[in-house]
Amino acid sequence: MRNIKLIFQYDGANFSGFELQPGKRTIRGEIEKALSQLLNKNIRITAASRTDAGVHALANVINIKINHPIPTAKLVLALNSLLPEDIRIVKVKEVKQKFNARFDVKSKTYEYLIYNGMNLNPLFRKYVWQVKPKLDLLAMQRAAKCLVGKHDFSSFCASGGDDNDFVRTMMKIEVRKSKIEIWKGCQLEVVSCKFKGDGFLYKMVRNMVGTLVEVGLVKILPGEIEAILMAKDRKLAGRTAPAAGLCLIKVDY
Amino acid sequence: MRNIKLIFQYDGANFSGFELQPGKRTIRGEIEKALSQLLNKNIRITAASRTDAGVHALANVINIKINHPIPTAKLVLALNSLLPEDIRIVKVKEVKQKFNARFDVKSKTYEYLIYNGMNLNPLFRKYVWQVKPKLDLLAMQRAAKCLVGKHDFSSFCASGGDDNDFVRTMMKIEVRKSKIEIWKGCQLEVVSCKFKGDGFLYKMVRNMVGTLVEVGLVKILPGEIEAILMAKDRKLAGRTAPAAGLCLIKVDY
Repeated sequence: MRNIKLIFQYDGANFSGFELQPGKRTIRGEIEKALSQLLNKNIRITAASRTDAGVHALANVINIKINHPIPTAKLVLALNSLLPEDIRIVKVKEVKQKFNARFDVKSKTYEYLIYNGMNLNPLFRKYVWQVKPKLDLLAMQRAAKCLVGKHDFSSFCASGGDDNDFVRTMMKIEVRKSKIEIWKGCQLEVVSCKFKGDGFLYKMVRNMVGTLVEVGLVKILPGEIEAILMAKDRKLAGRTAPAAGLCLIKVDY
Repeated sequence: MRNIKLIFQYDGANFSGFELQPGKRTIRGEIEKALSQLLNKNIRITAASRTDAGVHALANVINIKINHPIPTAKLVLALNSLLPEDIRIVKVKEVKQKFNARFDVKSKTYEYLIYNGMNLNPLFRKYVWQVKPKLDLLAMQRAAKCLVGKHDFSSFCASGGDDNDFVRTMMKIEVRKSKIEIWKGCQLEVVSCKFKGDGFLYKMVRNMVGTLVEVGLVKILPGEIEAILMAKDRKLAGRTAPAAGLCLIKVDY
């Protein structure tokens, strides 16, 4: 049995998320269909991040166990010719038998982009969340610091997930001004919120971003974050930020 | 009568182009609908560039003649609240009576982005044309030089336009490597083709880009461009490049 690791990117806009749902277009569905067609066998993938509907990925990771002799070097092109153009395999590597793309994750890094202003350039609207009133960046950075470390993140976990242990460690949270650029000279100033953690609960990044934005709008104070964490009550944290601004940047093993 | 100049941006992906077409979603249709609703009167706009289906704009320009007393400062927000999110008004200014957004244009600048390689990141796919075989950039630059100047561009004009004078002046054509970036660190190397001209015939930019790409693929030689211009025969130039890679960058008066 060969164990193959695949790194892939997608534009989440037209998917109902990662996990299979009857009658819906999903990332797992498209990848397993392409793999099964290519290898002439039902293939089941194991994934690092099972992103929600609308969330993008620059480097999600899966592994598959196969007997098929296809050279790894051929897999990239062969799969991309079968996949829709909103998913692209970027790297394939044969790995040790025991590697598991889901359970061996050391950390995942997500980035969330906020456009803070009026008149959002339409060409950027699918990659950012537009927040019109002025955000207090310093307050957001102070609040972010309170989320770093090992905590019970129940207050930031949406119902509907399959977690029963709510403790996660955030190694790093960065909130800062950044710029994105599609056409040269056509830049958009954004607020980037970057989260590196050993794991994330259901909608946890978007709930943390929603809470940081409420801090930026002075609806929640940075000093209240600790109490929100302690309360383990989803109702105390901020609303869930929209999916389109979120992107899985990196998975480390 | 007041004469108002408006600068606006759009993501062309979901429009059937600029000009009205029965039953289709068009840029003129959406803007005239919003203006007519806001000002309680049928408004007809005059536009600098009537872009094709799928073409984007960072700064297209229109003017309208109105009697309504609404302050120009209020027009941006009021119109944006009525317009769909893929069109945004960015600037409004009251101008002299004789200003005409279409006929007073001194030059327009278009940029076309080509991704030259395999495995296009899905997040960029709506802004570039993917050309897989390696392009000879130097040959493209040599060919571009032959297009600069005052020429009869019949060979680069698609049928179906309303032009009867095919002479235009290209002040500048730049072909060079460039980079675009959506998420920080997530860059895409592209070939940028930038055209500054006093006017452009129907599909002329996309026909010039298609021809430059065929030069890059050594299907047409740079030395043949002059003969293609002289022949005034659309069949001799390259195919029409897809719309998605094209963006109207700037209009000068």
